[in-house]
Formats: sequence, C-alpha cells, structure tokens
Amino acid sequence: MKCKAAVAWGPGQPLKIEEVDVQDPQAGEVLVRMVATGVCHTDAFTLSGEDPEGVFPAILGHEGAGVVEAVGEGVTSLSVGDHVIPLYTAECGECKFCKSGKTNLCSAVRETQGKGLMPDGTSRFSINGEPIFHYMGTSTFSEYSVVPEIALAKIHVDAPLEKVCLLGCGITTGIGAVLNTAKVEEGDTVAIFGLGGIGLSCIQGARMAGASRIIAIDVNESKFEMAKQFGATDCVNPKNFDAPIQQVIVDMTDGGVDYSFECIGNVQVMRSALECCHKGWGESIVIGVAGAGQEISTRPFQLVTGRVWKGSAFGGVKGRSQLPGYVEDYMNGKIEIDPFVTHTMGLEDINKAFDLMHEGKSIRTVILFDQ
Amino acid sequence: MKCKAAVAWGPGQPLKIEEVDVQDPQAGEVLVRMVATGVCHTDAFTLSGEDPEGVFPAILGHEGAGVVEAVGEGVTSLSVGDHVIPLYTAECGECKFCKSGKTNLCSAVRETQGKGLMPDGTSRFSINGEPIFHYMGTSTFSEYSVVPEIALAKIHVDAPLEKVCLLGCGITTGIGAVLNTAKVEEGDTVAIFGLGGIGLSCIQGARMAGASRIIAIDVNESKFEMAKQFGATDCVNPKNFDAPIQQVIVDMTDGGVDYSFECIGNVQVMRSALECCHKGWGESIVIGVAGAGQEISTRPFQLVTGRVWKGSAFGGVKGRSQLPGYVEDYMNGKIEIDPFVTHTMGLEDINKAFDLMHEGKSIRTVILFDQ
Repeated sequence: MKCKAAVAWGPGQPLKIEEVDVQDPQAGEVLVRMVATGVCHTDAFTLSGEDPEGVFPAILGHEGAGVVEAVGEGVTSLSVGDHVIPLYTAECGECKFCKSGKTNLCSAVRETQGKGLMPDGTSRFSINGEPIFHYMGTSTFSEYSVVPEIALAKIHVDAPLEKVCLLGCGITTGIGAVLNTAKVEEGDTVAIFGLGGIGLSCIQGARMAGASRIIAIDVNESKFEMAKQFGATDCVNPKNFDAPIQQVIVDMTDGGVDYSFECIGNVQVMRSALECCHKGWGESIVIGVAGAGQEISTRPFQLVTGRVWKGSAFGGVKGRSQLPGYVEDYMNGKIEIDPFVTHTMGLEDINKAFDLMHEGKSIRTVILFDQ
Repeated sequence: MKCKAAVAWGPGQPLKIEEVDVQDPQAGEVLVRMVATGVCHTDAFTLSGEDPEGVFPAILGHEGAGVVEAVGEGVTSLSVGDHVIPLYTAECGECKFCKSGKTNLCSAVRETQGKGLMPDGTSRFSINGEPIFHYMGTSTFSEYSVVPEIALAKIHVDAPLEKVCLLGCGITTGIGAVLNTAKVEEGDTVAIFGLGGIGLSCIQGARMAGASRIIAIDVNESKFEMAKQFGATDCVNPKNFDAPIQQVIVDMTDGGVDYSFECIGNVQVMRSALECCHKGWGESIVIGVAGAGQEISTRPFQLVTGRVWKGSAFGGVKGRSQLPGYVEDYMNGKIEIDPFVTHTMGLEDINKAFDLMHEGKSIRTVILFDQ
C-alpha cells in the first residue's frame, strides 16, 4: 500500500512529505494506522546527525498512537481495530531481560531496531523500490507503520489517541523514573533538572508520589509557571547564583535532596544532580541522553558517602504489561496529559513542530493525521 | 596516666614508640586498654601524607579491640571490664543519619573526628604537654586510648580480641558491602577487584550470600590461592588479556555480573567495575578510597541502560547495633578471620607491619600489646 510519511533524507535536513510504499506485515508484525504522534527531542537529536545510531533515509517518530489495520501470520495478541501505542522498548516476555523481572530493557528486537530494520533484517518502507529505514522500531511520522507485535501496547479503546500518544515516550519516561526507578515515597524531597516534557512529567510523578518538596531547576524561567502548575514547590534558576547549583540545592534542603532527576542530557548537569543529593541515601537518576562520547564524572567519595547514581529508560515501564495502566490513569484523572499539548497540526506542517521545539515555544506538538 | 604508643610525627616518617600522657576520659568518653590492633592500608594512606584530612603528630590505628578501663561522667552503656571494638563510624542513634534508618554514616562526632580531636575539640594525648592528635576517633596504636562512648561496640566477652579486632575495619567492610549494601542473593554472579583484606572479605561475603559465581581479579597472582580458599570460583589477572578487563568479565558471564566491588581505590578500576556489570540490573559498589582530587568517569549510557553505581563505607554496618552480631558470627563459625592474620608482633615492631603490607607479603598483621 501507499501512504504519506515525513521522510528524513539526511542529517540536518528538514523532513520531506513523501508518498511511501508500505509492505504488508510479515509474521509477528502488525500494520498500524497512525492517528496521532508527538514530536520529541529524541527525534530532533537523531535528525541533527549527533545520534551515533542514526541512519538515513528514515521515517522518524516514536510517540504515536493508532489503530491496528492488519496483522501478520502468527499474531495472536492483537486484532484489527485494536487501539495501540507503539513501543520503542518492546516486551517479549521471554528474553533474559524480561524474565529477570528487574528491568524493562527487552532485548528481543534491539539489534535490528538499532539498525533501522525490522527483526528479519529488512525494511517495510520504500520509495521507488529504494528502502527507507525504520526508526526506534516505531516510525510514527507515517500514516501507516509496521511494528512487531511485541512492540505494541494494546490500550483502552475509549482513550483519546491524540492525547495518550504522548504516553509513548516523554510523559511515561518522567513519571516512571520517579515511581518505578527512584520509587519516591511520601514526604521525600526531589530536585528536577530541566523543565521540558520529561522534567514536567517528573514533577507530576513526584506529586503523585506525595513528595514534600519538589524543586524545579531551569535556566529558562518561562518554564516555571507550568512547573508550578504541575506541583513544583520551588523554582530555581542556576544563573541567579554564584555558587554551583548543587551547593544551592544542598543549602536549600539542609543537606541535599532524597532524589534528583536529570532531564536534559547535559553531563555537567548530571554531576550537579548527583552532588545535590543527601549524603547517606540520596539517589540521582539520569534520564537525559548525552551526546556521543560524552562522559559523566565525580569524586568517588560522593558514592562512598552513600549517594547512588543510576539511570532510567522509558521510566522503567514495561510497555505491554504496564503502559495500558498509564492510559487508564490518564482516563481516570490521575495522570495529566492535556497541558503538555501546546500545539497541534497536520503532518504537512511537521517541520514547524521541530522549529517550535528548538525555539522553546512548545512543550509538545501533536501531529494529527488526516482521517 | 602514661603509656606506650606508636606516634606518627609527620608524613612519610616511620612511626616512633613514645611514652605518651593519656588524660582521663571526660563526659561521654571511655578509656580503653587496647589488647590487639590490625594495621590497615588506610593507616598507611594517612601516614603517606596523601590523606587530605591527615594531621600530625598523631596516633594512628583503627582496627582494634580492647577492654574498658574507666568511664567518664554520664557513660551508661559501658562499664569497666567490658570488651569493646572502637568504631571510626560512631552510632549515636539520635542524629538525622541514624534516625533515617537508611545509612550507617552517623554524623554525631564526624566533624571533630576529622580534625583529630575529641568531640569537645581537644585531644586526650600529649607528650611533654604538647598535644598529639587522635586518628579516626580510635587511635588504636596506643596501649590506652580514649574513645567516645557512642564509638564503641560492646562485644561478647569470650571473643578472642586478637582476632575480632579485624572486624573493626576491613573484614566487616568487605562482608557488609556484599550483604548490606549490595544485598547479594543466592545464585547471583559477582566480580571482586583487588584481593587485599577487603577484597577477600567480599569473596567471603559473596560465599555467605550463596553467589553462584565469584570472580576474583588482581594483577598479583600470588593472591589467587587464598581467594580460592575463601570461595572464589574464577581468578583473573587483567595483564593476561589484551581486551579491557570489563570486556573479559562481560564475555565470561554472558553479559556481565550482577554485582561488582572495587576494593583498591583506583579510579580506572572503578570504571571497569561498573562497566563489567550486566545491562538492566548490574550494580557496582565502590569500597576503595581514591587519592585526593581523583575522579571517576563513564558514559552516562552505562547508567541509562540500567547499571547502578554506589559506594559503601564500613560495609554499611551500624557499629554499635550490628557489629556485635558479626563478632558472634565469627564465634559460631559463619565468618572466618584466622586466615587473614598472616603475621603477629609487638607494638615495637609496628613499622615492620607497614613494610610487610607495602611488599604485599601480609594480608593483615595484628599487633599484640604487652599484657
């Protein structure tokens, strides 16, 4: 079949709307008609050319929601008409990682996904017979996408896809990092570095957990109002202080916070986030993705005196088994998504969505596909 | 009163046996007659002058055991004749850290202890009226030492002090890092970097926990025999491989170990220890103390993909409440100490103990005081 998709032809180039050929789903694969997709910093990171795994030409996008249009041979857990969110972290239930119960980092399709291919090592997208690469196993910037069955979460059929698409990445990543990875408890203090979609979601998660103090940190003070709406108790601009931000936070909190979250991808900020944690028990969670080859560092004394440095990918959330619960938490009012959607537009305007993000004018733009 | 003590007059100088004046214990303090003390790398580290907190002249030593000789005003939990192990990590039970239940890093006497002084800001040791500094709040290289009540663990009166003195530091640090900090469980795989007293104790802890594979790593292969006696299943010399040691361990273990322990204080090895952990759940524990100003580093991707970097001080063991249990575990055969004691000698030979350690010829020398 043919459909419209935004194709990334090369690093640094604007996306181009093209008519692409989409092959039928093969064994274990599912054809999804996309209804909506968010545009995330990770898409921009890959488009910039800085992502060492980035391959071109490709169809980007990984924050989508849609409807099952056809299923390949052997697909048993999904049927035509099911509503789904594509998962860049699959959940096969059978690999060493899934079976461990300790992580959401399923390895089943990881290798081919990282190369922009389906599990059989080929692509389902092409233009004039020339293959176009997949992206993160999801490629949601296309009217239709082919996704492995194990990389689709079946969600409640009444959930508004133009909202819950954002649970496919940023919001779940932030909330999950707080609730699953850090396991913040009632009364804990937290510091959140970077107030984009993930940082705001961390704030939301911290409020859900009952944190007593939620310190939101950004150099862009225009983000503070929304941070407060989501539950931040203090907003801090590091530029307003001579002392390093970690010292500022330690002083504000009588020794440091119980948990901190880095939501930017800046290795210097990752250090600050660790060092603003309380001696003896403070834990810092790295969420942001740093540029290729960049390193974090600190004095080991920080760890020996009880701080813990860890990371989180997709909030530690197991997509097939846990994401449907996040969707229901949105439907019953526990999770807020609507304030994140600052802009909506059609696929043909997708480059505008990237511009708004780069200019810091949007939290999330949601692309709505013509129905 | 007067007694013999080994005094460190300055960095890099051999210790000198001197007659020192010991003042009576003040309020909340206890006079301990030392029966035995180990000589540990941390003593040598401070003596070398590299310890930024090191002050001279001082009486070093922190791995001792002895008998209460006198108690100061208000001391209620100890009486003359009690057998005790001095603690460089006190346990007051009342500070924020003790009350948290999350850490053993009591802050009650930390500040003055770091300056070589008793909690009232003065020293109990002097020679010809000139004060001699305390060390780690313990100063066990003296026939008599004055120690805060909250920095003494009361132990079973039948425990052999010339053995259980080693529970005052290295052995407890290693076992505790495995059982308390990492919480290794039956069937887990572990890698232990550095086979001195702490590394061997980590091996012992891993065997106690039921680890299925215990990989012991050192560049000095003469340590392998004892490592195997304590329970190592594999011994690896990084010099025998072209690949980085983290890659060697990852290949040996189908993806990495569940837990690793750095028992040297080498920041490069700390990185290797983190990176040999399994994606998704592997945790690395820094135990070794690095030189002043040295830093650890890694790519944040290591954390985002599920590895955890933490540290451990005194094995996370709360001295007053938990160390007596370690002593009883030695008495009932659960913990081995005897193989660690490779040499014993009198206080007058203490510089020989340092030489043996520097030459890698001893695991631990125990100094036996004249009775």
